[in-house]
Amino acid sequence: MKKLYYGVAYYDEYMPYERLHEDIRLMKEAGINVVRIAESTWSTHEPQNGVFDFSSVDRVLDAMYEAGISVIVGTPTYAIPTWMVKEHPDVLATTKQGQGKYGARQIMDITHPVYLFYAERIIRKLIGRVSRHPAVIGYQVDNETKHYGTAGDNVQHRFIKHMRHKYGSIEALNDALGLDYWSNRINSWEDFPSVVGTINGSLGAEFERFQRQLVTEFLAWQVAIVNEYKGEGQFVTQNFDFEWRGYSFGVQPSVDHFAAAAPFDIAGVDIYHPSQDELTGIEISFGGDVTRSLKGSNYLVLETQAQAFPHWTPYPGQLRLLAFSHIASGANMVSYWHWHSIHNSFETYWKGLLSHDLQPNPVYNEAKTVGADFARLSNELVDLHKRNKVAMLVSNEALTAIEWFKFPDGSNYNDIVRWMYDELFRLNVECDMLSPYVTEQELERYDVIVVPGLYAASDSLLHMLNTYVEKGGHVVYSFKSGFASEAVKVRTTAQPGIIEKACGVNYQMFIQPKDVGLRGKQGYEVLSCEQSVSTWMELLTPISADVEVLATYQHPQWGNYAAITRNRYGKGTATYIGAKIAGDKLQLVLEQVLEQAGKISAEQRLPQGVTLKTSYNEAGQKVRFYLNYTAETQRVAYAGKDGLELLDKRTIGSGEQIVLKGWGFCIVKEA
Amino acid sequence: MKKLYYGVAYYDEYMPYERLHEDIRLMKEAGINVVRIAESTWSTHEPQNGVFDFSSVDRVLDAMYEAGISVIVGTPTYAIPTWMVKEHPDVLATTKQGQGKYGARQIMDITHPVYLFYAERIIRKLIGRVSRHPAVIGYQVDNETKHYGTAGDNVQHRFIKHMRHKYGSIEALNDALGLDYWSNRINSWEDFPSVVGTINGSLGAEFERFQRQLVTEFLAWQVAIVNEYKGEGQFVTQNFDFEWRGYSFGVQPSVDHFAAAAPFDIAGVDIYHPSQDELTGIEISFGGDVTRSLKGSNYLVLETQAQAFPHWTPYPGQLRLLAFSHIASGANMVSYWHWHSIHNSFETYWKGLLSHDLQPNPVYNEAKTVGADFARLSNELVDLHKRNKVAMLVSNEALTAIEWFKFPDGSNYNDIVRWMYDELFRLNVECDMLSPYVTEQELERYDVIVVPGLYAASDSLLHMLNTYVEKGGHVVYSFKSGFASEAVKVRTTAQPGIIEKACGVNYQMFIQPKDVGLRGKQGYEVLSCEQSVSTWMELLTPISADVEVLATYQHPQWGNYAAITRNRYGKGTATYIGAKIAGDKLQLVLEQVLEQAGKISAEQRLPQGVTLKTSYNEAGQKVRFYLNYTAETQRVAYAGKDGLELLDKRTIGSGEQIVLKGWGFCIVKEA
Amino acid sequence: MKKLYYGVAYYDEYMPYERLHEDIRLMKEAGINVVRIAESTWSTHEPQNGVFDFSSVDRVLDAMYEAGISVIVGTPTYAIPTWMVKEHPDVLATTKQGQGKYGARQIMDITHPVYLFYAERIIRKLIGRVSRHPAVIGYQVDNETKHYGTAGDNVQHRFIKHMRHKYGSIEALNDALGLDYWSNRINSWEDFPSVVGTINGSLGAEFERFQRQLVTEFLAWQVAIVNEYKGEGQFVTQNFDFEWRGYSFGVQPSVDHFAAAAPFDIAGVDIYHPSQDELTGIEISFGGDVTRSLKGSNYLVLETQAQAFPHWTPYPGQLRLLAFSHIASGANMVSYWHWHSIHNSFETYWKGLLSHDLQPNPVYNEAKTVGADFARLSNELVDLHKRNKVAMLVSNEALTAIEWFKFPDGSNYNDIVRWMYDELFRLNVECDMLSPYVTEQELERYDVIVVPGLYAASDSLLHMLNTYVEKGGHVVYSFKSGFASEAVKVRTTAQPGIIEKACGVNYQMFIQPKDVGLRGKQGYEVLSCEQSVSTWMELLTPISADVEVLATYQHPQWGNYAAITRNRYGKGTATYIGAKIAGDKLQLVLEQVLEQAGKISAEQRLPQGVTLKTSYNEAGQKVRFYLNYTAETQRVAYAGKDGLELLDKRTIGSGEQIVLKGWGFCIVKEA
Repeated sequence: MKKLYYGVAYYDEYMPYERLHEDIRLMKEAGINVVRIAESTWSTHEPQNGVFDFSSVDRVLDAMYEAGISVIVGTPTYAIPTWMVKEHPDVLATTKQGQGKYGARQIMDITHPVYLFYAERIIRKLIGRVSRHPAVIGYQVDNETKHYGTAGDNVQHRFIKHMRHKYGSIEALNDALGLDYWSNRINSWEDFPSVVGTINGSLGAEFERFQRQLVTEFLAWQVAIVNEYKGEGQFVTQNFDFEWRGYSFGVQPSVDHFAAAAPFDIAGVDIYHPSQDELTGIEISFGGDVTRSLKGSNYLVLETQAQAFPHWTPYPGQLRLLAFSHIASGANMVSYWHWHSIHNSFETYWKGLLSHDLQPNPVYNEAKTVGADFARLSNELVDLHKRNKVAMLVSNEALTAIEWFKFPDGSNYNDIVRWMYDELFRLNVECDMLSPYVTEQELERYDVIVVPGLYAASDSLLHMLNTYVEKGGHVVYSFKSGFASEAVKVRTTAQPGIIEKACGVNYQMFIQPKDVGLRGKQGYEVLSCEQSVSTWMELLTPISADVEVLATYQHPQWGNYAAITRNRYGKGTATYIGAKIAGDKLQLVLEQVLEQAGKISAEQRLPQGVTLKTSYNEAGQKVRFYLNYTAETQRVAYAGKDGLELLDKRTIGSGEQIVLKGWGFCIVKEA
Repeated sequence: MKKLYYGVAYYDEYMPYERLHEDIRLMKEAGINVVRIAESTWSTHEPQNGVFDFSSVDRVLDAMYEAGISVIVGTPTYAIPTWMVKEHPDVLATTKQGQGKYGARQIMDITHPVYLFYAERIIRKLIGRVSRHPAVIGYQVDNETKHYGTAGDNVQHRFIKHMRHKYGSIEALNDALGLDYWSNRINSWEDFPSVVGTINGSLGAEFERFQRQLVTEFLAWQVAIVNEYKGEGQFVTQNFDFEWRGYSFGVQPSVDHFAAAAPFDIAGVDIYHPSQDELTGIEISFGGDVTRSLKGSNYLVLETQAQAFPHWTPYPGQLRLLAFSHIASGANMVSYWHWHSIHNSFETYWKGLLSHDLQPNPVYNEAKTVGADFARLSNELVDLHKRNKVAMLVSNEALTAIEWFKFPDGSNYNDIVRWMYDELFRLNVECDMLSPYVTEQELERYDVIVVPGLYAASDSLLHMLNTYVEKGGHVVYSFKSGFASEAVKVRTTAQPGIIEKACGVNYQMFIQPKDVGLRGKQGYEVLSCEQSVSTWMELLTPISADVEVLATYQHPQWGNYAAITRNRYGKGTATYIGAKIAGDKLQLVLEQVLEQAGKISAEQRLPQGVTLKTSYNEAGQKVRFYLNYTAETQRVAYAGKDGLELLDKRTIGSGEQIVLKGWGFCIVKEA
Repeated sequence: MKKLYYGVAYYDEYMPYERLHEDIRLMKEAGINVVRIAESTWSTHEPQNGVFDFSSVDRVLDAMYEAGISVIVGTPTYAIPTWMVKEHPDVLATTKQGQGKYGARQIMDITHPVYLFYAERIIRKLIGRVSRHPAVIGYQVDNETKHYGTAGDNVQHRFIKHMRHKYGSIEALNDALGLDYWSNRINSWEDFPSVVGTINGSLGAEFERFQRQLVTEFLAWQVAIVNEYKGEGQFVTQNFDFEWRGYSFGVQPSVDHFAAAAPFDIAGVDIYHPSQDELTGIEISFGGDVTRSLKGSNYLVLETQAQAFPHWTPYPGQLRLLAFSHIASGANMVSYWHWHSIHNSFETYWKGLLSHDLQPNPVYNEAKTVGADFARLSNELVDLHKRNKVAMLVSNEALTAIEWFKFPDGSNYNDIVRWMYDELFRLNVECDMLSPYVTEQELERYDVIVVPGLYAASDSLLHMLNTYVEKGGHVVYSFKSGFASEAVKVRTTAQPGIIEKACGVNYQMFIQPKDVGLRGKQGYEVLSCEQSVSTWMELLTPISADVEVLATYQHPQWGNYAAITRNRYGKGTATYIGAKIAGDKLQLVLEQVLEQAGKISAEQRLPQGVTLKTSYNEAGQKVRFYLNYTAETQRVAYAGKDGLELLDKRTIGSGEQIVLKGWGFCIVKEA
């Protein structure tokens, strides 16, 4: 990219009265230099089957070009028009809950030829029309694409073929998935039942993997069409999103982000998060680390919140902090959903930069300072890159498997992911994200790999992790890792199976903890704590002389079993955490591993709520972001080489104290 | 009416053995002078298609007449017989949840010609048969009528025509309802989808208004039929009810009471409410105020609880208090559901005046005192009327709109209505109820109008309220008032839109409060309170020099914004309450407005739990009810002119102390 | 039976690799002498329609025989193969929720001829093949059989005929079930609607009784087929189970255990229960008492937990305690579900004796001690019988009726059953279970009958209970007893209806208690307690001079009513408990009745958590089990005649102190 982009989603089609030139005037004042259009307005662009009207696109492109604002054009395929559903009701996805009803977006069967026919036609019409327009810098295909639970007869039909292709014989299928159980055995391909009612977690997980594959294929199909039109310097992106808990929480269950990202030129994402007193910066960091890792490069925040919900209206200063937080994680664009608040329909209370009155307001006014600073610092802050030596390995397969076999307290995979990620964040240790399809070379770029709840994994991945340790790497596993095969078949050995070799412990029994604490062994007394174990615990027994038991359980019956262990294996270490321990205890365990690996230093020890993010610019200069996610003024000692604070253009000497106002931040570039 | 009626619902058809003469004997002892019959027993009266058997009606009419007990005959149309459903299964309403199942009452499609054909036939048969019977004083058509969610293809078909009629062009429809959003735009009437899956709040609210219209039409249709038979002096009524939260809570969402009441001679209602230690009298007062306002006259309590649920079994004294509470609100009839407890089926634990043993019991014995007093005081207490100068404006449209856009904490419209109503009640300020279709003259009968959450409203109504203030009226608005158009389109101006003119404040931003209090401005320190704001808050800014800021928010970030304001506009004032503040603080705000308007006086300041209701008899004499909704003895000073306590026939001097026993009451008529 | 059986469910079909001989080796080491096979593996045994493969059965039988391990063969009919559902989708039960989906077990219509045809064929094939095999000692037909909610058109059709047969005339039907209410009256058999939507509790209860009858018929049909093949000395059993609340809680709602047990040679059962610190022994005792009572004899625990859920992993010592607890209740077999933990599918976390690694582990090691002791003590502990003089009367009809008319706090029938049962258990008073179809002679075997919540009951049963008291028996009734007829028609007399005669009290009114306590009358001050009444209370009035009021209510309004009464009637007494009182108060009431009846003695007063179970061996010698369900060491005084502690072969003198370790037990046989 050439510059930082500051943008908004803009819907001329939703405007209650003619606003285009007034909106552009206000955008210019706020430093908005890119808008994102068209991804949800098919029914406006194709009011009747085969009748097209792109006048709103044309006029927005022309006006934006004139104003010097770039445009990202979306393919309008994620919300289908009424005429299509009236003509072909079965274009609506049939899910486990039955046939869908018209109304919401994202309700169609993404494999249905009727949908694909019409989608392809409008993509070609729209992108063919705009691709030469000088305002257009890139394309977004579809939006927050998922499979929408499509599971009708046609999808089942394809799934059976997929299973036959994958397993070859019916015998192999039954064996891998354990279908004998409860008489689910399929003895002939013709007998294959719809899986919507299955209780077999292995079969269910296979189907969900197949559904994710449908998303990957659908996106690649769209990209291939758009690529036919894409001009020099234009990009194609997708707006990925995350497990949604009212905000962007964790790994997306319905999409394999790593696989789906392959055909795109650049990764895009939306990130939403609590605000006001609940603002922590963690979701921005987590979402950024995932998205940056998809293409190993900078990424676009295609959507994030301006005012959004009433409880997300930012406090004064927060909007600025948020924008620079995204940059600190490696974003090259920060774009709000959306410019103006919607006056009807469904997301009326998901407010934009402008309220419903379409006039400047305190949040808009703060955006103006962001826009000005983005413009001023664009050269300094664009294309910043990371040199992380710590990575986290996340897995859709593990996620799905744990959905089928939830923890007794209802915790799921992302609870484990965030439990570990959040403590890394609090330690100011930045990380990249790896998929289960990582190669050995990719692994070896990192000194420490953190592995949360890798419940289902292939033998080869686990062997690779063993080798990684043997060669000098450090791995931290949580409980449940290594437990089952890719087909969610529990290993028939003592647990944790293959990784026992590197970890030097095993177990046969596991417990739902109640009134269980930790007792730190010699040198680890700091881990001792009552009532610090929840969700799950494994009764670990060391099996190698090189195992150090960091802590045992504090419990009248289970007190002889180890809870946390570290094994020296080859040139590296493998740490195994057998239970969900309290966050502060986990932090201590992680910190120690990082210290051993030399991946944490004094400068990362900052006041609570203050975060340090470090990047490198094109010239290789180190750029530090100090971000204060608290309402209080904070003081930190600058630990880098003498540098320049970029916002104030002020030199900062090594060791000099930096004062951060509440919800404030500063950016220091080493000379 | 000529007299007070004391009644019961009576079902000879449900009796486990021959009881008629014994029941009448017990009724006479209890002073029961009216029974309500037949509204739920179609399958007894028409055992087979076209075969009629009204013998139970005939014999009850004859026996009651002989005993001097009047009868209200219901049209038996709210519970359909099995033969109809076997012949025509599609007579069951298809709702958002799909096709209905036979079993409950109120499950049919009230627009279905099969149902209408059979309903008309039995109405004509039954009413034609009984209308000349001297026992019959009136008719109830159907019962607790609603639309039962009917939303099948036939209803959708009519709805489309209704939309075309209302909006004229497809363009106007799309604009008003904002259908462009998420590609919901309808570009041809043929494309109009079923709205059962819509996510568009404007379209959804239109459909619910249409469904309420179906109820209005259905009731008018029944009334027209019955009117063909109605004799001199007979009336036609309907049994309206309320939002049900296990008891009668607030405005009925599925019926526009004001519109539906038009064809009736007199309004009827059922009111149920918590009892024992939870008895407050508020539901009786609220339900009474609504129902009295429908026809601007006295009303019938067609159903209220005798023993009902186990937790509603009245304490000794409560049954009496309740009966006179209804009279104090303007009822001319108090009738229990029901005479006897049912031995089978569904409402077995909704107990009547008699328990399942059909013998006298303590509650029945207390009813005997009520019956005797009703008879004795009938001339004094019949046709009492109100001269209220305070009114509350309630709106089905606002209710539906807020259902579509619920408050973040789940609160809905009726929570706001009751929040304001309950404080008026506690201030002993009686009010009438107004609909959004009120005329200017009607408005001007009142000195103070309280307006809870008028979220969706026409421009004309809001302009009329501005004019009302300008001419000298006082309005108290809650937050959210004026926010959206009738079509639930948020106004494109600063909020609260049109009423900003009278209120002199506006806002662009709103918050979900957390740890927010009030800080009373000079002269209003009494409003200061920590943690007193919940549900919703608007960041108000005065825009007029005449605005007095009563309170600002107590919060580190939002402390500069006003929370409560009062504006002098023309000759009146408009008070705007921008947040859900604690009840006691709201009471202070209301009290002050009422004081300014001269609508509250010392006599309304009574011990907590003691309520004063004031009416006028035909002679224009003031009649005061002092009602003690506590278990303790209470003392109040009688503030009227010298008068007569009607129960004891004792004179009461002005200023004299009145002693009210726990759950007791007294009635004083000024001389 | 000849010996104690110690067993496991064994599924060669589910094994991830060849294990048979290794498994048998480990079983032998653990003293396993019986396995249970084949009840869930139809799709393995009949891979295609009409193609059979019993090789896994054959090889298991041969290998077990060789090892001296007996086998119980199940008919594999409770989980249907995919080919059947593909050929005949309507074989899946249609329930209130609609058509079923393939996947789980227990989803078919047990009345469907397609299912019955295939089920009969495989039963004959399998049982015909194995019945002469010397390893086979018996058969289990189906498993945990229920009706699975089957309620489709075919079942409705049969139900109508059943109703016509039962009631004869449509008039009688309408009268008994109260169908007039809400126009549900059926005036012609052709009009009979599907009852899936009924709101009539009487009709609904009739249908559920009919569904239970379907289970009885289905099981009898299977038994008849198996009996054709059953050899000398072989038995047929069924695996009954209980109301499931995450564990075996109470009376099974979907099966009439007493009726269904008739055709079986011996009753079998599965019992699961909380463990670790939540282990109380009550579920084992309750389930055992029910199952023992079905045939009046010893029974088989066909399934109980080994490791099962993470929170049920037994503490050291608990597995032993549990096994002997079953024996103490009269079991002749304790068999785990299951041998090995499952590696795929659904019950992966319902762990067996072996974990997924299929190796010895601490629980397995403890099982070895059980197996050894079972073998050693088999002659001493097999065929122990009870001589209980206390019984509890439980009723499916009352259970269903209370489901239709739940208590206001959501409590149901089994909450009342367990409320009473648990206090008997804590008093160390053992009881048998009686059904409503008990005969007068059977009743008279007992001195005390405890009757929880007998809400729906025939006149004849209640008269019989009156007679029982008159002749000298003692009955303790809870509230709600006697309230309604078998057809769930509330009695039209004062309550508790017919039993008023023996109880000497009646009531007309009942309350949902709030802040209500007890006030013990003279001599019963021990019952006084504030806030001790919950769920339900009846306002009792003594009507006989022989009534002793044990306690009245402590409440400002209801304080004059009796809460607990005892009446001397004839030669016996009837105690009536009108409210759900606190458990410790109930215990006092029960204890006093038992003392009067001479059915409790000093030896039953033991430290909390220590249980005494008493049986008799074939020689008539008394055998006492002292079971310590606490983690602490307990001391008890042995109260029997001089005897022999069977585990240690140590003599114990009368009065000698016995020391029980935490989760320990001892067994003393009188000399």
